[in-house]
Parts: sequence; structure tokens; C-alpha cells
Amino acid sequence: MDERVREHAAVLVDWSARIEAGDNVVCSVGPDAHELAVAVAEELGNRGANLLATYSSDEITRAYLQAHDGDFETDPAHELALLENTDVYLSLGGGRNTSATADVSGEQRRSYNTARREIREARLDTRWVSTVHPTRSLAQQANMAYEEYRDFAYDAILRDWESLAEEMAQLKALLDNGDEVRLVSEGTDLTMRIDDRTAVNSAASVAYDSHNLPSGEVFTAPAATEGAVTFDVPMTLRGETVRNVCLEFEAGEVVDYDADQGAAVIGDILETDEGARRLGELGIGMNRGIDRYTDNILFDEKMGDTVHLALGRAYDSCLPDDESGNDSAVHVDLLTDVSEDSRLEIDGTVIQRNGTFRFEPGFDG
Amino acid sequence: MDERVREHAAVLVDWSARIEAGDNVVCSVGPDAHELAVAVAEELGNRGANLLATYSSDEITRAYLQAHDGDFETDPAHELALLENTDVYLSLGGGRNTSATADVSGEQRRSYNTARREIREARLDTRWVSTVHPTRSLAQQANMAYEEYRDFAYDAILRDWESLAEEMAQLKALLDNGDEVRLVSEGTDLTMRIDDRTAVNSAASVAYDSHNLPSGEVFTAPAATEGAVTFDVPMTLRGETVRNVCLEFEAGEVVDYDADQGAAVIGDILETDEGARRLGELGIGMNRGIDRYTDNILFDEKMGDTVHLALGRAYDSCLPDDESGNDSAVHVDLLTDVSEDSRLEIDGTVIQRNGTFRFEPGFDG
Repeated sequence: MDERVREHAAVLVDWSARIEAGDNVVCSVGPDAHELAVAVAEELGNRGANLLATYSSDEITRAYLQAHDGDFETDPAHELALLENTDVYLSLGGGRNTSATADVSGEQRRSYNTARREIREARLDTRWVSTVHPTRSLAQQANMAYEEYRDFAYDAILRDWESLAEEMAQLKALLDNGDEVRLVSEGTDLTMRIDDRTAVNSAASVAYDSHNLPSGEVFTAPAATEGAVTFDVPMTLRGETVRNVCLEFEAGEVVDYDADQGAAVIGDILETDEGARRLGELGIGMNRGIDRYTDNILFDEKMGDTVHLALGRAYDSCLPDDESGNDSAVHVDLLTDVSEDSRLEIDGTVIQRNGTFRFEPGFDG
Repeated sequence: MDERVREHAAVLVDWSARIEAGDNVVCSVGPDAHELAVAVAEELGNRGANLLATYSSDEITRAYLQAHDGDFETDPAHELALLENTDVYLSLGGGRNTSATADVSGEQRRSYNTARREIREARLDTRWVSTVHPTRSLAQQANMAYEEYRDFAYDAILRDWESLAEEMAQLKALLDNGDEVRLVSEGTDLTMRIDDRTAVNSAASVAYDSHNLPSGEVFTAPAATEGAVTFDVPMTLRGETVRNVCLEFEAGEVVDYDADQGAAVIGDILETDEGARRLGELGIGMNRGIDRYTDNILFDEKMGDTVHLALGRAYDSCLPDDESGNDSAVHVDLLTDVSEDSRLEIDGTVIQRNGTFRFEPGFDG
């Protein structure tokens, strides 16, 4: 076994999920994530945590959804009971075909997701962490050779997370003290309210309310969004390429949308429910260990010089205790490059220009 | 996909587990049983059952057990809650190495199994069915080519179960009316009480209290075993070959044991707990579609011309309501060939001689 697989497992179990003896852990294992699952099992045994492995396969999901009449039972009791008794949910992604569910209709996905709301909530109530094992399928998605992709992935995952957390704390402080964010770039002029919101210093650990490995972003839950935004980073959503998605917001809600490619997928997402037309997240990438787009949101959205917005569900950790935030069965991130002709303002003050933050050398206010 | 995979899934879901809309189903998927899992998912979607897939990997189990200090938590709440809310548990076996846990100590296995008693009971309280997807690893175990093994496996699985059930009902009637069974063969002269026991007509369906696919045996729960038995069919147990295991019983309990090979494994099993030294099952193979030993108990014990006995846990379905039967953390089947110089008697009447039953043509009483 590549020593980096073991290091990945150790970071996931210790730094990310803070697993201790007696924790009830679910490991969701992708079909090609077996090797990482073995390494994680070793770490869990070592710590005296309790392991149940589930199998997460897009091909199984597709077969099930294609065959089902669409009248899904609400929150099946066995899966709900499992998650309600789970302390830690580790998602070890790694499939064999990133387009494995491409021919499942948007309507069928929506019905399935909508029927599983409490299951989703129960999972989000655990100390959950999503990561991926570098697979050939993800290498292909990134247009990279397998060995090259593994180097890329471990460079992003095996970082000095404590030091990155300190760096990101500076951006969190600016957001926590601000009321309104404005993002200006080509095809984009968008304002969002962030009063009373708490930004998350997403340092790849539940101790920071951060649930992705790799991470390396600062995010918050915006409201009352106004204006237009263009997402110029292409990506694959539900098995289809989307390119140059434009959204127009009024009073927090999408009132118009368009795309050079994949507009139908965006339309499907927006129709999921009420909350799918509102933003659940504004995120600012700060992981400069990620040096290219690989068409995988787990990595792309953390990359320096990028900003992303998510349609759908907001994370509770960004919200005041008395506010529930945007609710939806979906959380779909879309990405824009801010390395050129771009600026991010908080209450009129530029805090990032062309990718450089005001607390970094070379910042030109 | 080989059409037989779909047929296997359909038999499993309809004939074996009797799955209906709304059933909460757990599918335990082996690493190389993916294709069968996809076919089963399609069947479950079709019927409107609720699917949760778990991942059953010996390599994960090994990594976990090897790393753990051995002080296992009793029945972790998340796994127990899952199984207590499960209607149907389908085990789709299919690993990559039948010796994957060979270096795990017997003590560690025992501790683990003993700590998971309620979880095991909850699983046995579902409409559980164990089957396997024919894999290269199982082909190797059987000393067969992969394509040859697939033909073998599907010949055993895709049978006319209703007609076999009718045939087996004749043996069940003989056992249900009997008080004492005697098995005589080379190295074997064993008597067992079966008063008040109910034999199971194991026709590969929960409707017959039968939980294996393939099946094709009639079994009951013996008591007060006396005498000696030699298991002359070699098999792999816990990754090690055992050959010519001899057990000596007094008052229902093993008082001496020996083997030409693998005696240590038998010793480990016997030390699991009190119940591991008593018999939980007497089974008589009647699936004549299985034409050879393949070192896989799921198939071997169903083969015509064989009788097997299991150390450990008895199945409730064989027992009177007021009796709990032999209890143990293990259930380990051992097999003897009865095709030559052998007879099976019930209350002094020969019911099988050299593999032929008294209700079959050519029986020589």
C-alpha cells in the first residue's frame, strides 16, 4: 500500500473527524475506494472506534432509481435509525465512472432526495467528513494520468492544516465583521447580505465546522442576493457538462438562468424545491496546494483564486442560533475564477483583487 | 450483464426473500459481488422496497481486527439500530481472497463475535438470505476455471425450487416423526436425539425457514449427541485447510477432537464458548444439481450424498417454542461423504443407504 494512503486515513480519522474510542462510525465506501477503506479500518481499530461500512455505488443507485416507480417511501426506518445512532460518517468516494447516473431523470432524483430529508439531516448531524480516494475515473475526469492524479490529490490532502487554518482565520474575521459582500468580475456583479452570519474557517476538520478533506476555503451563508453572476469554470453536474452558467437574482431568488452548455441540468436543480432557487453558501478558495481545475468540486472549490456559490441548503454553523437558514434537498456548488479583472468587497472595502487577499503580499487595493 | 445474474437476483428477491413494497432491505455487498448488487438493486427498485447497501470485505475486517486491542464494545448502537429496523438482510458474498483473514488470531475473532451477540440475533430475526456471486476467488477455491465455475454456480442456484421442495418434504416428514438419528460411516457412529424437533425443508426461501441460496438440504437441531464422527470432506475454515476432523461426543458435548490437518482451527472454534462444543445442526444434502465439492460450505453442504453437522448455534425454527436450543457465537458446518459404506437410521430404520433415500428408486434397505 502506498504510504500516502495510510497518511490520508490518519489525517481523516485524527485531524478531520477527531475520532475517539467508542465512536460509532459509518464508512461509506465507493467501489474503487477499497484501499483507503482498509487503511481507515486499521486506524479505527487502533482507536477502538466501532466500524460499519456501507457501500456507495452510483451504478447501484442508477439501477434502483431507474427501476423504481418514483413514489419513494419517506426516510426508510432502517437507514434513519442507523444514522441517528452514528457519531461519525466518513464518505470515502471513489467510483468507476463519474457519469454513472447520467441517464437518471432529474425528476426521479428530486423525488428520491426529497423523500430522504430526515436521513440527510441525521447524516449532517454527525461529525461527517467527505473525502475521495484518487481513482482512475477521477484522473480521467481531470484529464490526468493516474499516477499524476494521485500526486495531485495527495498534495491537496496531505497539507499542514494547522498553518492553513491560521491563514484562513484572517479572512473569516473580515467576513464575520462585515454586513454585505459584493463580487465583481466579468459577467458578474452580485451583492449578498452576511449580517449576523458566522463564516466557517474550513480547515478540513469538524473542530472547525469543516467537513471536506481536502478543504481550504472560508464560507458563509449569504442572504438577500441581488444581481447577476457568471460561473466560468466548467464542471460536470449529474453526469453532464455545464459551462458558463449565468444566474440572475432578485430578493435572494433566482429569477432567470442560462448556460452555454447544460442549462437543462441547472433547470432541474432549480426546480427541486423552493430553497434550490436561493443561495446556501458563498465560499472563497484558499488552498494554494490545488494548482488546477480537475472537474471535481471537492478540489475545485478549495482552489485559491476561486469563489463559489451554492444553490440550496445552508450549513447551520454559519447561522445565528435563532435562524434556520435556507433549506433544500440539494446543495449544488458553482464556481467562478477570480484570478483576473475581479474583486471581492466587504462593505465597500476591497478584500481580494485578482485573487490576492488584502492580508497577502502584493495586494493592490 | 450475463442474463443469469439478473435471474439470480430475481430468484433471490422473489422466491428466497419474498420482498414486497415497503420492505426495509439491507444488501451486504462483497467487493466482487458488485454486478449482482446492481441486479438486486434493480429488482428492489422495481418492487418499491427500500435499499441500504453495506460493504462486507474480509480485508477491512482483518485490518480492523488486527489493529484493535481486543476489548470490543458490546453491540455498537448504530449497527444494532440498523438491523432492528431491517426487514430483509441479503448477504451477497464475493471477495477477492478466501484466505483474507487467515492471520487473524482465533482469540481476536472470538472476542469480536462474542461482543456482537445482539447484532447477530437482530440479523437472524430478519428475513435473511445468504448467497454468493460467482467470483474468480471462489473459482480458485474450487480448483475451477472462472467460466466453468460460473456454470457450476448458476446450475446450483437457478433450479426448480418448488419441485425440489416437494421432494425434500418426504425427508422432513421422516425426521419430524423420529426420536433418534444414527449416522454410521467409516470412522463414524453417532447418535443424536431429535424428539420434538422440527426439521426445516430448506428450499432456499424464507417461506420454508430456509436462508441460503442455493439451498437444497433438510436440517434439524440435534441434542444429546453420543459417539464419534469423522468429517472426511476437506474444507477451508478461517483461511486454513482442515482435513479428516474427528469429534468425540459424550452427553451432547465434544470431549475429544483430532484432525489430520487444521486441528488448531477446530480447537479455536471449540473454545469460543460453551455452545461451540455442542451441535447446532444436523443437515442432509439433497441438491443433486451440485455435482462436486468446491470448498465452499454454501454449496458443499447442500450436495446430495453428504451429511453435515454444525458446531454452535441452533436455528430457532427447528425448536419447540418453549426451548431456546444450543446458543453460541459460532455456527461452523463440517461435512461427511455418505455415498459409500454409509447409512442413516431413524429409530432403527434405515432411511438412507450409500446416498440413496428410502423414497428414491434403487434404495436398498
